[in-house]
Amino acid sequence: MIIKPENIPSRTTSIYPNEFKPLVVGRAKQALGNVAGLKNFGVNLVTLAPGSCSALRHWHTCQDEFIYVIEGEVTLVNNAGKQILKPGMMAAFPAGEADGHHLVNHSNAVVVYLEVGDRSPNDEAYYPDDDLIAKSAADGGRIFTHKDGTLYES
Amino acid sequence: MIIKPENIPSRTTSIYPNEFKPLVVGRAKQALGNVAGLKNFGVNLVTLAPGSCSALRHWHTCQDEFIYVIEGEVTLVNNAGKQILKPGMMAAFPAGEADGHHLVNHSNAVVVYLEVGDRSPNDEAYYPDDDLIAKSAADGGRIFTHKDGTLYES
Repeated sequence: MIIKPENIPSRTTSIYPNEFKPLVVGRAKQALGNVAGLKNFGVNLVTLAPGSCSALRHWHTCQDEFIYVIEGEVTLVNNAGKQILKPGMMAAFPAGEADGHHLVNHSNAVVVYLEVGDRSPNDEAYYPDDDLIAKSAADGGRIFTHKDGTLYES
Repeated sequence: MIIKPENIPSRTTSIYPNEFKPLVVGRAKQALGNVAGLKNFGVNLVTLAPGSCSALRHWHTCQDEFIYVIEGEVTLVNNAGKQILKPGMMAAFPAGEADGHHLVNHSNAVVVYLEVGDRSPNDEAYYPDDDLIAKSAADGGRIFTHKDGTLYES
């Protein structure tokens, strides 16, 4: 089926614990893949307002990620430093590669990109810059803990 | 890691039985995801010369597919008929949906698109227009049979 993004709702909320939510204000995601009936991987159309970012810097133990930039210029931050991605550029973040990454919109214009990620079970996400670890919950969602293992309350 | 398509080899061969190979002459695939280290899903940058097509019309029992058109105008053929996809347009083909689909370049210009597909095991592909079924081989490759179950020799 042809995907019609204009008919797909946009989510601006975050599942992060409250203290991290402000970082992703200005981020909107449309779950294109879910709406189209895909189950094995997610495809989101993501819009980042100036100053917003894709996520906290992180890497996954079991799930692969891929992004394709459609509009604007976005800064990829990872262990290699900062690199600008322009429309048509792509990046991949293989599962198990301990290189925390995120995309930050340091420009004055909107950034739009596609993100693809699979749903391999028992995934964990590590956040090198923050006191945060994400584990997989039985329902497919996430459980967030501090690095000492204690749960976040929110 | 940032993906540099200009450094990634292009494959123009097909694994189809010999009698079907001519249909995809003019198709070139660059395995961006594999080169970048992704394992859970494939991401290919595909170029179709005029007259070429993505594949025989088919659907998968277990594997999801997604495509994003980058350049040119390509015709999506499925049970709904023929629809033109232009740059920036996307389509999804959920596993188990018995709607054979392929992309055909009926234009006079090159078509470029991204295709994403996962690697769920025990997948089969059905080809409604052709005497062909594809099953998963133990090595992750494909075994092609006629619809009566006999193997193709080539």
